[in-house]
Amino acid sequence: METRLSSRGREIVVSGDRPFVIIGERINPTGRKVLAAEMKEGVMDRVRSDAQAQAAAGAHMLDVNAGIPAIDEPALLVAAIRAVMDVTDLPICIDSSIIEALEAGLSAYEGKALVNSVTAEEERMERILPLVKKHGAAVIGMANDETGITMVPEERLALARRIIERAADHGIPQEDVIIDPIAMTVAADPTCGLITLETMRLIRDKLGNNMTCGASNVSFGLPDRPTVNAAFLPLAMHAGLTCAITNPLEGQVRRAILAGDLLLAHDEYAMRWIASFRAEQAVGRAQGAQPKPEAAK
Amino acid sequence: METRLSSRGREIVVSGDRPFVIIGERINPTGRKVLAAEMKEGVMDRVRSDAQAQAAAGAHMLDVNAGIPAIDEPALLVAAIRAVMDVTDLPICIDSSIIEALEAGLSAYEGKALVNSVTAEEERMERILPLVKKHGAAVIGMANDETGITMVPEERLALARRIIERAADHGIPQEDVIIDPIAMTVAADPTCGLITLETMRLIRDKLGNNMTCGASNVSFGLPDRPTVNAAFLPLAMHAGLTCAITNPLEGQVRRAILAGDLLLAHDEYAMRWIASFRAEQAVGRAQGAQPKPEAAK
Repeated sequence: METRLSSRGREIVVSGDRPFVIIGERINPTGRKVLAAEMKEGVMDRVRSDAQAQAAAGAHMLDVNAGIPAIDEPALLVAAIRAVMDVTDLPICIDSSIIEALEAGLSAYEGKALVNSVTAEEERMERILPLVKKHGAAVIGMANDETGITMVPEERLALARRIIERAADHGIPQEDVIIDPIAMTVAADPTCGLITLETMRLIRDKLGNNMTCGASNVSFGLPDRPTVNAAFLPLAMHAGLTCAITNPLEGQVRRAILAGDLLLAHDEYAMRWIASFRAEQAVGRAQGAQPKPEAAK
Repeated sequence: METRLSSRGREIVVSGDRPFVIIGERINPTGRKVLAAEMKEGVMDRVRSDAQAQAAAGAHMLDVNAGIPAIDEPALLVAAIRAVMDVTDLPICIDSSIIEALEAGLSAYEGKALVNSVTAEEERMERILPLVKKHGAAVIGMANDETGITMVPEERLALARRIIERAADHGIPQEDVIIDPIAMTVAADPTCGLITLETMRLIRDKLGNNMTCGASNVSFGLPDRPTVNAAFLPLAMHAGLTCAITNPLEGQVRRAILAGDLLLAHDEYAMRWIASFRAEQAVGRAQGAQPKPEAAK
């Protein structure tokens, strides 16, 4: 199944037959005090530089979130989206829990956006899906509902199916629903990783939809999170994950995704792997890094 | 299925229900000029220090190989095994392509060794399996035969089954055959990784045996091999790999295995993950490393 997203000048395709798609997560004031303070003042310099840095680091799309408490979020989200469109032509994932902000963002965006997100909650589906249809966008469907998050993979599958069917009722084709099977930390419950992977396999095998997730959730509360996230991503890719909202500026995560593509036959002759290695070497040389001494054999 | 290996003083258990078992690969003169030169002179200082270093880095077993061309390999392998037994009580994997060396090593070893390895070749099975039985050892069965290595997972499964059945004919129980499903580099053929993973799933689901592999083969010929190996190991663990002959001194590989155990529910409350992180922090402090500055948020 192929999900096509676009900006004014560029189209990207999310598909299990293609390399993994990285949706850069950095443009989000949650937990970023400096960015939040600037956005609150209407200063978009850091939004623009974050967009450029993520594009340079290999992001294929950019998530844009303007969730700051007690602010005019629709206006701020539009301003952030415009700032990003000024400096890159990467397609955008419009991210808000406030429906008016999603609507304003969709109206301002030029291209086919990804809406982040709808759940299987009745009220959310009935308000968000018509907006998605009206703007010809695609949408992330999170596999939870009013009762919370189930730990039974078959029940998450059923919720994914419910969102896909409801989207179809609103005229949104199946390929324009990207399912989030929900990743949770293994710090609290060691089976959380396996439950997410099993949910992914079920959704891939029974529905075939593209999938995204907040991969770094698996390591919440743990030390050395990038290493846990880097181990999780190839596992998730093998289970059916085709894109993720993550940080391409984190080298370990970016390299784990490239290695996953390589090991899962999405990088013939290791062309992208080798090109990325050479690019990092060039950056290292430019920064005056010394080669590591060879260990005694 | 549980495979039990032992030294004089210690037993380890390889099982899909337990944390992954690391078999340290360093005591092997292939490609290690300094070690080879010392071993050739009968000097075992580096063998001993490599054994201790791998034990300290978290190896659960040690592979011992003395394959130097034009040498009395049986005598050298015995000397190396004795040197390792002097300094650690980790169970040993006796590694040679020369049957007389395996025999001498098994005679010298005190405990239940793992023999590395037999293939599905008729002559090898008929010579090695009686030795394994005589010494009450376990054996690694490589899924290839006289015709070479097949790229069809079902055919590798059939070869694994053949070794297990022949071992049973010789009185070796199924749990004492650890299958190597064979890992090959993705540099030459991008589907090699998927073929190995599919073979692992088949062997786990149809036979249930423990599995090992030379995990670093997947990255042969590529730059930044540790990152590729680190991405492959959790994938292989999820597909049924329960131990691997690898280098625990390579931090990325060691951490990928710990992260794999964590994500696959073999590390409750992340106890081992956190303990390992703290141990590395303590080493870092002892070496005078400075904490990394926090990136601007």
